[in-house]
Amino acid sequence: MDKEKFIINAFANSINGDDGAIVDGYCYSKDLFCEDVHFKRSWMSLEQIGAKAMLINISDAIVMNATPKYALLGLSLPKCLNTKQVRALQKGLLDGAREFGVQIIGGDTIADNKINISITIISKVNKKAIFRKGLKKGDLLAFSGKLGESLKGLNILFRGGKLHSKHRFIKPSLRQKFFYDIAKKVRVSMDISDGLNKDLSRMLFQNQLSVKFLKKLDKFSLNSAEEYEILFAFDKKHKAFIQNIAKKHRIKLNIFAKTTTGRYKFYGREHHF
Amino acid sequence: MDKEKFIINAFANSINGDDGAIVDGYCYSKDLFCEDVHFKRSWMSLEQIGAKAMLINISDAIVMNATPKYALLGLSLPKCLNTKQVRALQKGLLDGAREFGVQIIGGDTIADNKINISITIISKVNKKAIFRKGLKKGDLLAFSGKLGESLKGLNILFRGGKLHSKHRFIKPSLRQKFFYDIAKKVRVSMDISDGLNKDLSRMLFQNQLSVKFLKKLDKFSLNSAEEYEILFAFDKKHKAFIQNIAKKHRIKLNIFAKTTTGRYKFYGREHHF
Repeated sequence: MDKEKFIINAFANSINGDDGAIVDGYCYSKDLFCEDVHFKRSWMSLEQIGAKAMLINISDAIVMNATPKYALLGLSLPKCLNTKQVRALQKGLLDGAREFGVQIIGGDTIADNKINISITIISKVNKKAIFRKGLKKGDLLAFSGKLGESLKGLNILFRGGKLHSKHRFIKPSLRQKFFYDIAKKVRVSMDISDGLNKDLSRMLFQNQLSVKFLKKLDKFSLNSAEEYEILFAFDKKHKAFIQNIAKKHRIKLNIFAKTTTGRYKFYGREHHF
Repeated sequence: MDKEKFIINAFANSINGDDGAIVDGYCYSKDLFCEDVHFKRSWMSLEQIGAKAMLINISDAIVMNATPKYALLGLSLPKCLNTKQVRALQKGLLDGAREFGVQIIGGDTIADNKINISITIISKVNKKAIFRKGLKKGDLLAFSGKLGESLKGLNILFRGGKLHSKHRFIKPSLRQKFFYDIAKKVRVSMDISDGLNKDLSRMLFQNQLSVKFLKKLDKFSLNSAEEYEILFAFDKKHKAFIQNIAKKHRIKLNIFAKTTTGRYKFYGREHHF
């Protein structure tokens, strides 16, 4: 049984099932970032762990076209951490928040065996929220940046190697300025957290559509999780507009598919982490 | 080192340090409810665990004079739980939410060794929020209901006994209707989660005041944690008004102290759980 899927379905209602929940002009999102599930302590410094926990949560707000404002923290911290270590984790969280103008307004802490970080982000929707649902036949599908590096980095870590502090697996690049600028022309969007193939499947399933690929994507691009690039779609008439904005922000833009009727079949090797 | 205190101080800013954070007419609160920290699985059914996790979070919203509206869940669930068990936990969470008109709008789930529940409650402030700060010299201090049963129940559990499903330790009674009715005359408030003595000390410390007790309280009343009764203060001229509302709602009202200048000295035996 896929327990996460079971639970998500169990709590499903009209509002959730997206990166965040939209209520009264605000977007609320909450993700967990947990030791031995999402990271190992040998892979990253505590400061990097704190910063990544904050960034992956802020990512959810951005892809819904909302500006993150406030954060609530839920921290489980091992008793063995010393003051210096707690301060390092805290610095990462605060720096990650500050980079996006987010204020930490509260939270709760307990002592446990592992570092588990639960973050709730409260964001203000910019004019209109963008959901995963609403895709139309003939829309172009695109993603920002370059995919694959996160999985490659993970493979290095699994082999006992180390990653540079600027490696995407350590510090994702969020594309907020680019995305806010194109938002009015975007039909649907989500962040690529479980890999393009998996996330695209979800989006297509929700919209009961399929795709025709316009280019061949390698297995790294398809299967690399925790990329935090943006998967989005738009009417083909907005292609030049979006290409121009991407150029303005120096963001690589990959228009890789076109939506068609039918049912999408998951392809490529699935990446489980 | 008291790690929780250290972290709370580390993240302190103008907004937090209360049961919830107030921003733009909304109250945001987040508490953790964790196996082997707040409960043992042998003490309560999974349904009771789910319901209590929800209620203790809703309690924070009520004491700030806010009406809880939405919840986000962060669940760590052991892989060994079967579908029936997950459904039981889910039923508890949903029933707890439904009882207060709260809609679960999103969240995240991971597989881990223990049941750790992190809940964020989004509430709408009723006219004006009530904080812990703002106490004045000469104010009367009161708490709702009767304190002590939670600690007595905990002692039974520690001795290997069982508690009735309506026992306060299993299912706290929240006093939302009473509290919303008296709110306009309430100066400061907080819920009693760590025991009257500890929580009162915090409130007095924040307000740089002390108290003169008007009656003697037994050690159970002073030290019982997880009561979720409300500790509040009001100008003595509102005494009759508050007594009347308590009578109307059939809530036992304990006006137990009067604020004075000076520094409060923690008294009685401290209850650690």
